[in-house]
Amino acid sequence: MPRGITAKGLATRHRIVEHAAELVREHGTGGTALEDVRHAAGVSSSQLFHYFPEGKSELLLAVARRAGEQILLDQEPQLSALAEGGSWRAWAERVYAHYEAQGPNCDLSALTAQLGMGDPGIREVVSGMHTRWQAALAAGLRAHQSRGTARADTDPDRAAAALLATVQGGVLMMASTDSSAHLHAAVETWLDGMGITEDGD
Amino acid sequence: MPRGITAKGLATRHRIVEHAAELVREHGTGGTALEDVRHAAGVSSSQLFHYFPEGKSELLLAVARRAGEQILLDQEPQLSALAEGGSWRAWAERVYAHYEAQGPNCDLSALTAQLGMGDPGIREVVSGMHTRWQAALAAGLRAHQSRGTARADTDPDRAAAALLATVQGGVLMMASTDSSAHLHAAVETWLDGMGITEDGD
Repeated sequence: MPRGITAKGLATRHRIVEHAAELVREHGTGGTALEDVRHAAGVSSSQLFHYFPEGKSELLLAVARRAGEQILLDQEPQLSALAEGGSWRAWAERVYAHYEAQGPNCDLSALTAQLGMGDPGIREVVSGMHTRWQAALAAGLRAHQSRGTARADTDPDRAAAALLATVQGGVLMMASTDSSAHLHAAVETWLDGMGITEDGD
Repeated sequence: MPRGITAKGLATRHRIVEHAAELVREHGTGGTALEDVRHAAGVSSSQLFHYFPEGKSELLLAVARRAGEQILLDQEPQLSALAEGGSWRAWAERVYAHYEAQGPNCDLSALTAQLGMGDPGIREVVSGMHTRWQAALAAGLRAHQSRGTARADTDPDRAAAALLATVQGGVLMMASTDSSAHLHAAVETWLDGMGITEDGD
């Protein structure tokens, strides 16, 4: 982003990225042209060029960064609360509600699909998102293990890696089944396996 | 497929589908043109038209059907053996070895990505594959529960749904991590949660 950008400029750039993200969620990266983004955001070609001088690849990277942040934000405050002994049930319900509301055209699917482009910047975004998500889940499991509200004999890092894959698989399956049944089954089975039986706190 | 097709004709059709599947795994459906398939399979335009008169959509459906079968075949004979009390460890090792050898350009990823096309025939193929896979996993869990080699207090259908999502999430994550660590973590965590600790039989 250019230095010395104004508040109004930031708002315009933000609007462009938000509209681009929506188009990418609906039509994929291949089905999203700069011209569509320009129309949706109501900006001129020169404005679009001002904020994204390198064109579509730069805009898509911004969309990916936004999605990476949003995927974590959409689990808050319940995700961060886990490390303080917050409720796994509350986190799970937040995740179910979010993906049930968004349907298959979600940031997570869009970001994963963008990986197919093989752009190293996008791989870095996905990798950073995974690392932060998994670390938050592992911290949550450690907190519950030390409080005696989760099985103590599991490796929290491995279990967190498992849950990360599990949630993504459940979301992926929503696209083919039009149902969150697999997401629920996957997360509930993980909670059971971890000996987490709380009803929230 | 036309009636009265000869053995040679079947072999030609099979060759076309195999080459198309390979191209789709590598380049996606969008990056695979009929002309590429024709060249790879070494057939003429009229041969391609003879076997796939409706063109690319018909060929892609055949590729999806092939992938749906192959995803299950690649887990055999260990997947079917589960229902007879066969080893979960052996099945897991088969799955790890297969996806580690194939890398991210596998039939499962290709088939999932094809879903984005919104073709009802392809959704049906994916749905059928899921149903059969999940049923085999549930039958395996039931067999082990009745033999006392798995926790008896879990719903086998829900647990099988969870494992199905888990494996797919683990395979999905191979594309961004270049590693099967999440697939291993996810399946091993499921096995632990189910109280399956056998070393194979």
